[in-house]
Amino acid sequence: MTVLLKIKYDGTEFSGYQVQPYKRTVQGTLNDASLSVFGKRCNITGCSRTDSGVHARAFYATVKSCDGSVISIPVSNIPRAMNSVLPSDVSVVAAYEVEDSFHPRYDVVKKEYEYLIHNSAIRDPFLNNRAYQYYRPIDDIHLELMNRAADRFCGRHDFRAFMSEGSSVTDTVREIEYAVFERTGDIIRFKICGNGFLYNMVRIIVGTLLDVSADKITPDDIDMIIESKNRSLAGQTVPACGLYLSRVEYPYKKAD
Amino acid sequence: MTVLLKIKYDGTEFSGYQVQPYKRTVQGTLNDASLSVFGKRCNITGCSRTDSGVHARAFYATVKSCDGSVISIPVSNIPRAMNSVLPSDVSVVAAYEVEDSFHPRYDVVKKEYEYLIHNSAIRDPFLNNRAYQYYRPIDDIHLELMNRAADRFCGRHDFRAFMSEGSSVTDTVREIEYAVFERTGDIIRFKICGNGFLYNMVRIIVGTLLDVSADKITPDDIDMIIESKNRSLAGQTVPACGLYLSRVEYPYKKAD
Repeated sequence: MTVLLKIKYDGTEFSGYQVQPYKRTVQGTLNDASLSVFGKRCNITGCSRTDSGVHARAFYATVKSCDGSVISIPVSNIPRAMNSVLPSDVSVVAAYEVEDSFHPRYDVVKKEYEYLIHNSAIRDPFLNNRAYQYYRPIDDIHLELMNRAADRFCGRHDFRAFMSEGSSVTDTVREIEYAVFERTGDIIRFKICGNGFLYNMVRIIVGTLLDVSADKITPDDIDMIIESKNRSLAGQTVPACGLYLSRVEYPYKKAD
Repeated sequence: MTVLLKIKYDGTEFSGYQVQPYKRTVQGTLNDASLSVFGKRCNITGCSRTDSGVHARAFYATVKSCDGSVISIPVSNIPRAMNSVLPSDVSVVAAYEVEDSFHPRYDVVKKEYEYLIHNSAIRDPFLNNRAYQYYRPIDDIHLELMNRAADRFCGRHDFRAFMSEGSSVTDTVREIEYAVFERTGDIIRFKICGNGFLYNMVRIIVGTLLDVSADKITPDDIDMIIESKNRSLAGQTVPACGLYLSRVEYPYKKAD
């Protein structure tokens, strides 16, 4: 049996998901907690490698004992047991039994990310590290333009222009299902869902769409930037603190 | 001229509003910032003395120079100037010119507080220090009972039973305009508005209403507890982290 954890974390104080020597990471924190709860060293495999400062409302990770022995705690008790030893910025919200062949990254069908923009000249202490403060006011006409531009990302495209250096990925074709902005007060929330995302892809897409809000480019330019496969034509990589992994879908169940 | 600041703060890292030696307080932080921005020592007078860990979405404070000299920066520039030196957990959202006779505490007509209850067995990293996690599930029938009980606080009453020790207040009569719970997902939000509040009054009222949710008391018991003027009959003081000063109303303008 393999245990699948659904977790939530505030990424502010983590150096990303993946284990790194001498750094506080989500994976390392889950490693320590599972040793303490299950009484044995475990391999933790996550659904994604989120960067330093990126948050997750729904992140999935499998837990397998390193020596192949069975985890004997009933899954329904696992969230409470893990949360009793985990720090307050990460929480196990559910645990499931899955087949040993299940892989939390390779089996992903769709992922949704959210990006929060705090569109205000005034800092909000409650959004500190939780949203990107963008000072320049975005009016409704420009929000509509951003939504028209966001539409151009939908469908199957080679997103090489929207990938940061430092990735070993060679197949840069991905399929985007939807990409849309919604405003509530001074918060502008971007949601994007697709079958996969390249390194920094969501943050570069948001940076490019903010160029539309500032009249630096038009919605029509998006097609050209995609076709160019040239990173330097896309916008800047917006800060990590606005990004949330918000939904992951697997073949046999919808996980919210 | 007196400057009136509207501020917002996350109370987590503050030892309350009021200056105390060797403690990090909101008033002390505003003192330091105003010395730096206005170039002179100033007296900061707040609308309330919030406790350690209590938050404010709308808090008002006046700034007057200690030597009586005029503050010469245009009010419209003050928020940006103050925010450039203030730490990230407090922000000046607006500044106004008011008459020198204005007093941010004595002139208050109404105040509204919010109390956030995270009604879940599972911790939420994004609500850490921002809501009171209450594990026991509250169903809709009990939420309705809590609302009926909350209604009993409305009107003019002697709220001595809902005041913590350590207050020098002698007139314990206050008038409550509304007190109501609303649920959104696993968040239960309590809003209470009145012409004034005693020391820990909102937190004791919420603690008492949670006793209604747990069938320890009935809505009818509220009348009896109020009449008793006996603190020991009311519920516990719930944690500070769920409490927000959310609105303050002055005679000549509505401030949201």
